[in-house]
Amino acid sequence: MPTEKPGALDLTGMQRAVRWYPPAYDIRVEAAPIPQIIDPDDAIVRVTLAGLCGSDLHIYRGHEDVDSDLTCGHEIVGEVVALGSSFHPQVTGRPELYSTLRVGDKVVSPFTVSCGECHFCRIGFTSRCVHSCLFGIPSLPGGQAQFVRIPKAGGTLFSLSALQYSATGIANRDLSHLSDSSLILLADILPTGVFAAMQALQHPKIAPMLTAKPYPLGGHFPAQTSSQGQAAAALQSEDRILTIAVVGLGPVGICATISLLDILASLESSQGLVYQVIAIDPLEARRNKMQAIYDAIDSTGKGGGRFAIASIEDGKNLAANWTNGAGCNAVLEIVGNNSALTLAYEVVRPFGIISSVGVHQEPPLPFNGRDVYNKNVSFDFGRCPVRAMFPIALDVLLKRQDVFGGVGTDSSLIEKVVALDQAVDMYKLFDKGDCGKILFNPWI
Amino acid sequence: MPTEKPGALDLTGMQRAVRWYPPAYDIRVEAAPIPQIIDPDDAIVRVTLAGLCGSDLHIYRGHEDVDSDLTCGHEIVGEVVALGSSFHPQVTGRPELYSTLRVGDKVVSPFTVSCGECHFCRIGFTSRCVHSCLFGIPSLPGGQAQFVRIPKAGGTLFSLSALQYSATGIANRDLSHLSDSSLILLADILPTGVFAAMQALQHPKIAPMLTAKPYPLGGHFPAQTSSQGQAAAALQSEDRILTIAVVGLGPVGICATISLLDILASLESSQGLVYQVIAIDPLEARRNKMQAIYDAIDSTGKGGGRFAIASIEDGKNLAANWTNGAGCNAVLEIVGNNSALTLAYEVVRPFGIISSVGVHQEPPLPFNGRDVYNKNVSFDFGRCPVRAMFPIALDVLLKRQDVFGGVGTDSSLIEKVVALDQAVDMYKLFDKGDCGKILFNPWI
Repeated sequence: MPTEKPGALDLTGMQRAVRWYPPAYDIRVEAAPIPQIIDPDDAIVRVTLAGLCGSDLHIYRGHEDVDSDLTCGHEIVGEVVALGSSFHPQVTGRPELYSTLRVGDKVVSPFTVSCGECHFCRIGFTSRCVHSCLFGIPSLPGGQAQFVRIPKAGGTLFSLSALQYSATGIANRDLSHLSDSSLILLADILPTGVFAAMQALQHPKIAPMLTAKPYPLGGHFPAQTSSQGQAAAALQSEDRILTIAVVGLGPVGICATISLLDILASLESSQGLVYQVIAIDPLEARRNKMQAIYDAIDSTGKGGGRFAIASIEDGKNLAANWTNGAGCNAVLEIVGNNSALTLAYEVVRPFGIISSVGVHQEPPLPFNGRDVYNKNVSFDFGRCPVRAMFPIALDVLLKRQDVFGGVGTDSSLIEKVVALDQAVDMYKLFDKGDCGKILFNPWI
Repeated sequence: MPTEKPGALDLTGMQRAVRWYPPAYDIRVEAAPIPQIIDPDDAIVRVTLAGLCGSDLHIYRGHEDVDSDLTCGHEIVGEVVALGSSFHPQVTGRPELYSTLRVGDKVVSPFTVSCGECHFCRIGFTSRCVHSCLFGIPSLPGGQAQFVRIPKAGGTLFSLSALQYSATGIANRDLSHLSDSSLILLADILPTGVFAAMQALQHPKIAPMLTAKPYPLGGHFPAQTSSQGQAAAALQSEDRILTIAVVGLGPVGICATISLLDILASLESSQGLVYQVIAIDPLEARRNKMQAIYDAIDSTGKGGGRFAIASIEDGKNLAANWTNGAGCNAVLEIVGNNSALTLAYEVVRPFGIISSVGVHQEPPLPFNGRDVYNKNVSFDFGRCPVRAMFPIALDVLLKRQDVFGGVGTDSSLIEKVVALDQAVDMYKLFDKGDCGKILFNPWI
């Protein structure tokens, strides 16, 4: 099996891969076939880094009702080593990468396949692509391996190389200071954090704070009338203070917090926004990590807004004290369980938004009809459309290399890069919550 | 007690009122004290028309845990007969009506008090005013009476008279063809219908259909980047077809449908929108009423979109057939029970919106975490901020006098205007669902 970066690479043999066996907690690092092109739209990617993600633990713990073995992992950075016959320079009418992607290009794959061509992909809802498929399930081997097959690769992949020679798209970014390890954050957790923030900030119930126009006239929708009528007193400066809580400070929650602060700081300078952010987690170790990362951000990523990191009780108190008892305008719920949703409901104000990106499971939602009616709550649930969020997430990644760029320091989100052989121990460690973000380098 | 329109009116005696006694189904038309000014911000209104509303039935049936008797009703049109000391022409820094409202003015009251001065009122979330109070509860006698006290009247009331002499606000409307009976619709059900439609249409997940820009860049939020990157194929015309279902065709549902069609028709001409609306109700009588009203609308209120009125099964089939199986972009849920929410979930597409204005009660929401995560559903719940929606609802009311203006025809929403003395029978009839919208005239 190949152990060095391939020159004339033999892609027909076996590779090393992290594999999971049912029913639970059974990780083995073993030989598996190198994946082959089986559809013209496929690409084969040599994995240079693969992430270990909180949602890998759903499989690991046996919570996903999977009954056959699989190759783990859905956060993938690598290099294209083979392309199906759909890829050639003359392709038109398909996503741009079908004509521009080349063997040797550096790519990031989102954690799900998205074709780029169905209705859902065209309008940006890529996580609900009609061809959607999660990496790391029995039918689609994951990225904690030396090689991975990417279906619908012209839609799914994001090419860093293409950025540098594309005539259209988001070219002209200076990528020279972008660390390789930070790219893994684009595969899932950074876009998911950005998405959590954007869902809240784009909601029409937040528009009055951003635009100084009262609801319902501050939204993007063309107003039917030019006046609010004669009832309301004028908006006061205190009305525009935006208070947002983040519930959950694991790696995704930290990404959400950093992204939120970055976007709010930018709105502060462009629109005079005044804001307050409360980052909540019950675990001291996570709060300390959040604090160390916050301390490392330069001032452009902090802005002038008030910021606090808090335990659950402290978070509730701050949400009340900082808002004269009204509560938060929005809550980003990053955990994926009912305790987190219940906390979000407690700290959100009437007409507030709960932007939930946590992967929720089978328990019924912890609200009754009267709860949600009486508070005029808005909810946005579900999986981040990672591919659609890439350009915005890349902007955040480029600006915030101060915290996303490093490995293994107190103030870096990524704790270590290890060999696949250490997977058994790393899953155990991660399952206990005893470490931060771990990456695998399949070639060491 | 007074039975004629007052000249020099004695406001100190008794009046006739519709009163409810616990535990349930006990309506009596009896004498009650004429309400008095008890706070400087109060107005006393001579009620010219009062509506019987679906949510009066929650009290009637004993579902609201109320244990003392009360004066019913929360839909109020009338004429100001007395004003507290807060009202005088020199008032500044308060809602405009504190300086402009006069005895004799024609007014509509929303179904809840809103001060116009707290944070929630100033930003337009008037239904969650810190002084919010529903008319028709033990502590605030309702409008099915000859007189009613309006707290915080300078914020709560909407003055039709002020519209005609206001220097600011939404003046210059031609109100000459506005029927008196149609004004009662402004108190609750028409703004609630407009709100249901606006919540859906203003949602950022609908922006791609309205703006032809893929998510997340079509919203009102300033985009961080100017491009979607290289993944997606261009939007096609079919991507912009907006399909919306309305669940529930009682009076509010009919208002929601008419408002939705009106707004969509206007977007069709201004932005080239293509749309489809499916109005769903299990009851044939309600579907027939909806059809008769739809037939009576002139073409400006219908636009060129596809429209169908359907039973539940037909509605599900249309939602699939009209969208190639994707489902509806948004569902307006106007019923307020779990069957309606479940139907809304079934017919909404991934990344769709459920805009719920139904008054939900204590049962837990009929979704689990996996349901809402896997479909990326967005929900907006809660009570319409009627006062903030008035200007937009008045525009719809003025345009749609063809269906809202009449009484007692097949194509009118309002079925009859009756005396208070008929209240016992009318509550019984309305409780059985055997009639449309009923109004009381307390002076006949």
